[in-house]
Formats: sequence, structure tokens, C-alpha cells
Amino acid sequence: MREARTKILVSFNEQLDITTKTGPNDLVTNIDREVEAFYRDKIKKYYPASGIVGEESVNENTKPAVDGLLWIIDPIDGTMNFVKQRDHFASMIAVYQKDKGLRGYIYDIMQDKLYWGGADIGVYCNNEKMAPPRNKGLEGGLFGVGAPLLIKNYHNLQNVAMRSCGTRIYGCSGLQFIHVLNGQCVAYSSYLRPWDYAAGKVLAETLGLVVKTIDGKPIDMLSSSDVLVATKNAQKDITRIVQSIY
Amino acid sequence: MREARTKILVSFNEQLDITTKTGPNDLVTNIDREVEAFYRDKIKKYYPASGIVGEESVNENTKPAVDGLLWIIDPIDGTMNFVKQRDHFASMIAVYQKDKGLRGYIYDIMQDKLYWGGADIGVYCNNEKMAPPRNKGLEGGLFGVGAPLLIKNYHNLQNVAMRSCGTRIYGCSGLQFIHVLNGQCVAYSSYLRPWDYAAGKVLAETLGLVVKTIDGKPIDMLSSSDVLVATKNAQKDITRIVQSIY
Repeated sequence: MREARTKILVSFNEQLDITTKTGPNDLVTNIDREVEAFYRDKIKKYYPASGIVGEESVNENTKPAVDGLLWIIDPIDGTMNFVKQRDHFASMIAVYQKDKGLRGYIYDIMQDKLYWGGADIGVYCNNEKMAPPRNKGLEGGLFGVGAPLLIKNYHNLQNVAMRSCGTRIYGCSGLQFIHVLNGQCVAYSSYLRPWDYAAGKVLAETLGLVVKTIDGKPIDMLSSSDVLVATKNAQKDITRIVQSIY
Repeated sequence: MREARTKILVSFNEQLDITTKTGPNDLVTNIDREVEAFYRDKIKKYYPASGIVGEESVNENTKPAVDGLLWIIDPIDGTMNFVKQRDHFASMIAVYQKDKGLRGYIYDIMQDKLYWGGADIGVYCNNEKMAPPRNKGLEGGLFGVGAPLLIKNYHNLQNVAMRSCGTRIYGCSGLQFIHVLNGQCVAYSSYLRPWDYAAGKVLAETLGLVVKTIDGKPIDMLSSSDVLVATKNAQKDITRIVQSIY
């Protein structure tokens, strides 16, 4: 991932090749594709029997994985920020064995901070072991959210936002997960695809945080959902507000 | 301001004394007060005839200013982030002569980047002169906004957000102004008090950006308004969407 970081930083001196995917605000660049190909090559070299799911490629090697491992890759999470801000994006890798997350890696490229770990070893920021964040309720912290969910008031999330200490939207699920991991926010909710939350889920659950659908159900890995990561207390508070509309 | 930065960083090792002002999410800490007092003392020493308006004190010296200068201070802009995140806050000073802004200073404390300047000298980030950002329209960039305006859809701002490349909420007007200054966002709108926008207005106008009320009127300095800072093109796009509801 440090090699990938160098590729990304070097790309700032070159013209990006930017194309759209599902809509005008769903971007992919040549760097997303190059970094994903780089990760795939490395994984195939060292773990040839693994399955791989990535954001930017045809997922030809998804299953069945002979070694039982599935690698879930987001080469650049927050591509819009990468293009428009040259900051505030992440690179993410997760390793799963069936539904069980073994390792998660979220790399804040511009801050050069790699958040990584798993249930058996704990969570680290670079070489420093992270302590679990305090178990604050919704009213004790900041609430990260995806803009469309907030604007459309899906799941009563405007009410959730108004009861928190404040709303934060960074446009990068990796960075928003990091904010919950280190206690800068008590919760984050957004419509996420598997590569948006796979790494964050491993790290968050290792630190005692809850990662479920916004209405409190277990997440079906490899599907897209309105995901909520939160402290135990904030998750209870939010679920109560969300369920009050049904 | 670099001395103030040191005071703020040292405070991370001490217990903060936090109290609320107008509501549970309107915080002030002993560090806000100490930094404001520090700025006031320095200003009184070197500019004893100046008026001073600050966020955290009784404004006993506001007018009339014998030397015609008014200093507008926000010791810590984004106090909630300062308390909850230990990151993503700014310290700001502006110098005005009547309605004319002479100097603006926005200090991103954690990144150690001071944005400063005025019409006669240009705008600098630390020692590096900044070029004006590209004059992109709303659909060409990210839109920063205050959460309450977005949630309540004041001025049709949900529509503005949906037509941009994406919505960003950082909870610190100084940092959101910086994002427009350096082209990371094409616009930012929020309900702001004079100390929230005084420094940003000087810097933004120097770089050819527009700073007006959200409905396109000149800003009455020393009053609170729904302020919009934007590129010329984004300001036109946004005003059109805002006015379409009247």
C-alpha cells in the first residue's frame, strides 16, 4: 500500500484520465484502475488461490476461492475528492474468510496514516496500537453521514443529525470510518458498497464498535446497504430514532 | 498567531474547561477565552486606538476606533471540532477600516498553514503566493454548506447541493473558506456571524471570488447573515437556484 501511495502522489504531476460510471458524480480515473491492477497483481502473486473483488474491474476471480480467502479492494475511496481536492481520500483493502473479516486496511494517503488490524491482533495507526473509543451516545458526539441520505431524510436521518453534536460530510467513507474508529465522530451512516465498508467493518468491530444496517440488521457481505457504524450507545440511540418512523 | 498555536497545542495535554453558550452545541472553552485575551492584549499594545470585536468577550472597545481600524477575532473557529476531534479548527483575525477589509488571516492550526493577505499584497499560504482558483460553475465542483441550512432546505439549498459534484460539511467556516480559496470547493454557504467570515471575505475577494448574502446582496458587516462565498460562475448558478423559489 505504501508503493500504491507513491504511485498516487506521483500522479499529481500528470494529467488524470477521468471518466464517469453510473452518473456525472460517479468518477473513475486511470489511477484508480492502475492501483487496483497493482493490488490484484500482488495478491495473485502471493495468494494465487484467493478470490478478489474490486471496485474498478471485472470481478473474474470472485469465487470459489480455493484458499477460502476473499480480498476486497477499493484502490481510491473518495475519487471525487481525489480529483477535485487532491486530498481527503483513502485506499482500502480487506481480507475475508466467508463472512468473517480477518484483516482491514484503510490508508489515509495524504496524512500518510495507515489504519490496519484484525480481531486477533487489535487495530493500529501506523505502528501505534489504538484504544477503543469511548462509548458515547448520539448526543455526546458528531455524526458523519452521506449527503443523499441526509438531504432525502431517508430513515429519519435529519432527526438523527439534529440530535447529535453536529453533522460532518467528508465524501470519503474510509475517512469517515477512521473518524469513528478514533472517536472523532460517534457514528457514520451512508449507502455503501462492499468495498466502501469491508475494511472499516473489520477495524470497527475489533474496537468494539457496531457495524450493522441502519435499521439494526446484520450486514450481508457482498451486497450494498445503508450501513451504520457507531459506538454501542450511539447505535442504540440512532436505531430508536430510525425505527420511530415505521 | 504562531504563539497562539503553541498555546492551543499545549492545551491538548490539559483538561479543557468547556461551557455552553446559546445551546448545547454552542461551546466555549477556556482556550477560546485565553487565545482571544492574548490577541486583544497584543492588539491593544501595538494598536491602542483600534476597535476590537471578538467572539468570546464583551466587546467594550468596538467603536469609535480613533485610528479607524476594527479588528475582528475568532480565537478558535470550530470549537466543537476542537473539543471532539482535536482537529479541523482554525484561528482567525481580520482588520477592517470601516467596511473595507485590509487584512485577513485564517490559520489551519493542525496543518500549520496560515492563509493571509489583502487586496494590496495578494493572498499567501504561509510564504507561498496563491493563484486565484479556476472560475468553475456549480456543476464543476464541490459545495460546502452549514448543516442546518441543508437539513431545513433554507433558500432551496438542497437543490443547490444536488446539482453540485457533492456536498461537504466540515463544521468550521474558516476551513470551508480555505477550501473555496484553493479551489477544493466552488462554493460555501452557511449562517455566519461577523467573526466567522470577516477574514475569509478579505482573502476571497482578493482572489476574485464573490462574497455576498445567499440571495446576492452585499454583506452588512457586523451583522449575521446567510453568507455565500463562491467563484463568480458558481455564485450565478446558485443565485439562480435560490431565487427560483421566490
